Amino acid sequence: MLTHTLEELATHGMAGLSIDRIARAAEVNKTSIYRRFSTREELVGAALERVRIDLGASLKDTGSLRGDLTLLVATVAAFFAQPAGRALIRAVFAMTDTTALPSLSRRVEHVALAPSTAMFDRARLRGEWRKGAKPELLLSVLVGALLHRIVIERGVATKAWIASLVDLVARGVSPE
Amino acid sequence: MLTHTLEELATHGMAGLSIDRIARAAEVNKTSIYRRFSTREELVGAALERVRIDLGASLKDTGSLRGDLTLLVATVAAFFAQPAGRALIRAVFAMTDTTALPSLSRRVEHVALAPSTAMFDRARLRGEWRKGAKPELLLSVLVGALLHRIVIERGVATKAWIASLVDLVARGVSPE
Repeated sequence: MLTHTLEELATHGMAGLSIDRIARAAEVNKTSIYRRFSTREELVGAALERVRIDLGASLKDTGSLRGDLTLLVATVAAFFAQPAGRALIRAVFAMTDTTALPSLSRRVEHVALAPSTAMFDRARLRGEWRKGAKPELLLSVLVGALLHRIVIERGVATKAWIASLVDLVARGVSPE
Repeated sequence: MLTHTLEELATHGMAGLSIDRIARAAEVNKTSIYRRFSTREELVGAALERVRIDLGASLKDTGSLRGDLTLLVATVAAFFAQPAGRALIRAVFAMTDTTALPSLSRRVEHVALAPSTAMFDRARLRGEWRKGAKPELLLSVLVGALLHRIVIERGVATKAWIASLVDLVARGVSPE
């Protein structure tokens, strides 16, 4: 049902989101949705929350910043290739047209990337992090590059492409 | 008329693009559009071509790779803040929904960024470019980060933000 919510958001945007259609697509009773979520925002929030949990389960300590970043980008790339991930991308793009929830796309990402903060703490402890380098900027660059690869280049995030991206940004945040 | 073409593309996508509406919005006669452009693709191509010329006029040799990259990002950011630029962003996003012209978003960018190649040649001559660093990846990262900033973060590409981004990627492509 949460994936169907993302799909609905992707197709109709926040403004046109219909609980009726979500219930029909998920083959559940509309009242059973209302029992769990009293507002549309709660339902959408729950759909986004699950994205975070999925990402959190995949990230682990690989022993190096490059390893951790490679795992992060590969995990996000693999997620974007799945139906729920494609729905999320389309949902974020659909939201650019609505003014109803201007901060939702930021929230999508904030929630989704929350589990990645531990990797920056590990990098600092290992001495792999330059003083003054910004984790938020690094995440923006990684996700931006990935979206660029998928949406604008219509390309695939191959292992070689991910390695080049990680090499570029890891050099950018390393101590001199 | 070319800006109206981008606006039309942004709102209706390539599949729903209407010469009638473009003519009305631009307050020109439909036949005067057909006189200059025999197909819709030619019209869209011309609209994108103008984007390239605008960017080309702004880029110049600042004397350093960091200076050149800062000028490039600031120029693209300023363009994205204008009506034609906002239309272009929406157009690229609208194109994600159509399968009619899958390579158009790539072409948008290829055409738009063509004038930037000279800056990489200059960086190589100045010894500011690491052997093996890829100009295309750097451009993907810069444009991806900028789109991320505008579309997902709903933020502004301030001078400080641009400086941080350029610092990160310039370290990433510099010789060790």
